[in-house]
Amino acid sequence: MLQHSNTFDIRFSQAQVDQFAALSGDSNPLHLDAEYAATTTFKRPIMHGILGAALFSKAMGMDFPGPGTVYLSQTLQFKRPMFVDTDYSVVLTVTAHDPIKHTATLSTEINDKATGKVCTSGEAMVMNLAVL
Amino acid sequence: MLQHSNTFDIRFSQAQVDQFAALSGDSNPLHLDAEYAATTTFKRPIMHGILGAALFSKAMGMDFPGPGTVYLSQTLQFKRPMFVDTDYSVVLTVTAHDPIKHTATLSTEINDKATGKVCTSGEAMVMNLAVL
Repeated sequence: MLQHSNTFDIRFSQAQVDQFAALSGDSNPLHLDAEYAATTTFKRPIMHGILGAALFSKAMGMDFPGPGTVYLSQTLQFKRPMFVDTDYSVVLTVTAHDPIKHTATLSTEINDKATGKVCTSGEAMVMNLAVL
Repeated sequence: MLQHSNTFDIRFSQAQVDQFAALSGDSNPLHLDAEYAATTTFKRPIMHGILGAALFSKAMGMDFPGPGTVYLSQTLQFKRPMFVDTDYSVVLTVTAHDPIKHTATLSTEINDKATGKVCTSGEAMVMNLAVL
């Protein structure tokens, strides 16, 4: 039986954002260059949206439902930017579960802990090999 | 005027997958543990789907349309697994463009170079701050 929802807190450093830029090749100055970011509507560097999305993969692969999870699909709406040195909550909630196919649909969300506002939202579909 | 499509080749190493696991916290043994992966339908470790998706962010942030790009949304269908030490093509194609809002919709795809089969597909929406 799947538990209904899973929540954890996260905070990234600029060093982690730099590491993700090197790994992905995405060195968009919006993520790395404070001087450039100051000229934009965001005023300071914003995190890569996909680095936030990696937290959904982490939650599903490690805990919910856990090891053996295979990602089938994910939708992502980047509603508000995420910043380094800022506390976020990651919330996953099972919205549908097929015990025959061993698949689940989850709503996936990253919220700013201070304001409660949604930064990234979307929906994931996963299958769990461990229970097949 | 936006160019119509952008393609580049990519290949990841297990070391890069390990680095992504450390950064995201997703140490699902399916990605890291050859012995465990051998017991699954995949037979060998598969890459994190989101690490593949990071290539779309890279393409849009660096080249197409380039620095100043802000990610609005992305859908991802993980159709086939990606493996390390394997050549993939990343293909982005503009499917719609709003010159007033400076937004674009792109189809995003990762294909296995040897087989031509689609591993990851989806659609991105971006806005370019550089032209605002």
